[in-house]
Amino acid sequence: MPAGTMEEKGRDNVLVKFEGFDFIDGGVCAPKGFQASGVHCGIRKNKEKKDLALIFCEKDCTAAACYTQNKVKGAPILVTRQNLSDGKARAVICNSGNANTCNADGEEKAQRMCELVSQKLPVDPKDVIVASTGVIGQPLPIEAIEGGMDALVAALGRTPQQAQDAAFAIMTTDTRKKEIAVSFRLGGKECRLAGMAKGSGMIHPNMATMLCFLTTDVCIEADVLQKALSRVTKVTFNRVSIDGDTSTNDMVSILASGLAGNACITYENEDYEIFVNALYVLLMNLSREIARDGEGATKLLECVCTGAEDEETAETIAKAVITSNLLKAAMFAADANWGRILCAIGYADASFDIVRVSVDLASSQGTIRVCENGSGVAFSEEQAKTILNEDEIRILVNVGEGKGRAVAWGCDLTYDYVKINADYRT
Amino acid sequence: MPAGTMEEKGRDNVLVKFEGFDFIDGGVCAPKGFQASGVHCGIRKNKEKKDLALIFCEKDCTAAACYTQNKVKGAPILVTRQNLSDGKARAVICNSGNANTCNADGEEKAQRMCELVSQKLPVDPKDVIVASTGVIGQPLPIEAIEGGMDALVAALGRTPQQAQDAAFAIMTTDTRKKEIAVSFRLGGKECRLAGMAKGSGMIHPNMATMLCFLTTDVCIEADVLQKALSRVTKVTFNRVSIDGDTSTNDMVSILASGLAGNACITYENEDYEIFVNALYVLLMNLSREIARDGEGATKLLECVCTGAEDEETAETIAKAVITSNLLKAAMFAADANWGRILCAIGYADASFDIVRVSVDLASSQGTIRVCENGSGVAFSEEQAKTILNEDEIRILVNVGEGKGRAVAWGCDLTYDYVKINADYRT
Repeated sequence: MPAGTMEEKGRDNVLVKFEGFDFIDGGVCAPKGFQASGVHCGIRKNKEKKDLALIFCEKDCTAAACYTQNKVKGAPILVTRQNLSDGKARAVICNSGNANTCNADGEEKAQRMCELVSQKLPVDPKDVIVASTGVIGQPLPIEAIEGGMDALVAALGRTPQQAQDAAFAIMTTDTRKKEIAVSFRLGGKECRLAGMAKGSGMIHPNMATMLCFLTTDVCIEADVLQKALSRVTKVTFNRVSIDGDTSTNDMVSILASGLAGNACITYENEDYEIFVNALYVLLMNLSREIARDGEGATKLLECVCTGAEDEETAETIAKAVITSNLLKAAMFAADANWGRILCAIGYADASFDIVRVSVDLASSQGTIRVCENGSGVAFSEEQAKTILNEDEIRILVNVGEGKGRAVAWGCDLTYDYVKINADYRT
Repeated sequence: MPAGTMEEKGRDNVLVKFEGFDFIDGGVCAPKGFQASGVHCGIRKNKEKKDLALIFCEKDCTAAACYTQNKVKGAPILVTRQNLSDGKARAVICNSGNANTCNADGEEKAQRMCELVSQKLPVDPKDVIVASTGVIGQPLPIEAIEGGMDALVAALGRTPQQAQDAAFAIMTTDTRKKEIAVSFRLGGKECRLAGMAKGSGMIHPNMATMLCFLTTDVCIEADVLQKALSRVTKVTFNRVSIDGDTSTNDMVSILASGLAGNACITYENEDYEIFVNALYVLLMNLSREIARDGEGATKLLECVCTGAEDEETAETIAKAVITSNLLKAAMFAADANWGRILCAIGYADASFDIVRVSVDLASSQGTIRVCENGSGVAFSEEQAKTILNEDEIRILVNVGEGKGRAVAWGCDLTYDYVKINADYRT
């Protein structure tokens, strides 16, 4: 079963639920063995805003990651990729407020961050995942991080509060923290998987993602873990776009402590598929949170493309729709300007016959058909307005040709997006 | 000599000048043989806004066109493509306020528009270029056009005022008309080439363009004319992006009356190259006008990419830069956030080594280097602000690898872009 084909069990205000996977509290500290902390160390001027996060595991973990495909890569990406080449890690350090990218001394400082963790905790600097997020091209104030390390390590703990502190510390223009944890069973053993993520601009992942740090207590070998992460990232984070800009510092990483006591996953068996599904539940919901909290956003847009010749075609179409600035602006105004959806479908780089395409708009207020066989159909503008006034909109595109299906997530384009990005450096 | 490699002769407030090509008045009526008109026929509610344009030539013309590559094509595109299959035409009719796209009866109504011209003027319906621009997916009110034909034909004439009326009538969200005419010599004969165009949203041409109607009195065979038009469109209109959305109704067409008396161009000789250069002067300047008047824009952005391995690489990079929402928002705020330029260069789908890239920002207030060898260099933020406060900004990217060069045009992203597009249908 490909990731993402499970039947939904339902939706609450925010999360999409699936049978066999229960949402639990505790963020990245929910899986056994993990501690976390988040402090203000001074990279940001606002003392209320935490800017340095740490995750630490009581034992060595298998580890995996996916990275941005931008040719400009943040220095921390280069160091982390090197450190994870042996599939093993034990800690994550991440600062916000500065991306440590396009700086001549970037790698040196990213290495230094790993060493700082190593000096305070029983972990080799080569077993540290390092990340930075914020403005590009300004020297990283490493002294602030050096000065904050004692407090950061002292604050480590297993409570939901400490996990939440870490989730807050990695935020940039995000308006809220993003952390989700799920529990599920592997061979009768209770297992946990958790993640914290940050958006919320320069989001158009390409074979990678915005920053997301995952923890799990599942026992799973590093190469299988990498396979699972890559597979699920492809159908979740890689289908989010806030603004079409692929960041230089995107990364999703995972640490697996193995403390759940499950039979270790060493190949693609049944347990592997359950783990992949758990990853899908987590990453899909985090993707939705990132899109919902896109810079300036007032609405989450979810484009569900079905009936395509294959999944790739469906993905291309769904991504074209949620990336269209014109559609995004129309959604901000709750305007059922479906011509812009057709236009975006039409310029999607995929092969299909436009005369078979139908489009519905849906939300918790109902579903309305706006286009059939590539042409408009009469519909009630009033009903459309009621549907589009909700803060979560689904755009249902049926290509009418096959069984390919994909979902992509985005948000509306608002005055605040412009405001946030016109003012970002000041 | 490839189109677009001529040395600039200078720039006035608006136009880029070249040796041997003089800007003249008269718009599309400047070339010999052409008449034009523009009236309000009632597609738009606002009676002050002309919404129907006509161009008519006193004799048959050779003709050529390039069309949108969007799979959703406006009905007028389909009819025009059919009509121009013999390389011959004599009139253009274009309405604004409705795109006649994604309507079941679209082609029928586009055909009807050609017949209406044919009923009033000595032209076969198959020799009419028909175009529509405006909202997608609403039935075209053909009665309004039928009712307006008498006035439209009665208003035909050769004066600059009449050309201007036509240029106004094709505008949608454009804030000003776009018409340019140039004169030049072929074998001692004075020749003229002119065009009117409209933007200003859903602009991200792909092997075609927004609406642009060209007239010339050069004698040139249809297949050579098509070759010239395609060649120059590729390096001008196809390098403009306002918002990343490729429209369904893009078209650039040209009518050549042959009345200048030049030795008819039947193959790619020296006169052909001069004609290509004339086309370049006209289309490049119209491209700049379209970008400058992009929806909500306050600034024209011109990205000049040099030193690339080849022209295609340079084009990919230049287009990635001027398409970046994040950079566009920064330019609105006159913020020298060059990290966003590097980021966009980094995700451009081309092959090059980022560590050789340098970036300068330039305007009439000077030039400032912000990035060298892929990393930031110290610069005066104050000086950068002075440069970026101008309303025409040049972003100079040197890839440091070869001789490939390309220019692309865009604009800033502003509150007004969102406002215009949130309100468009209402």
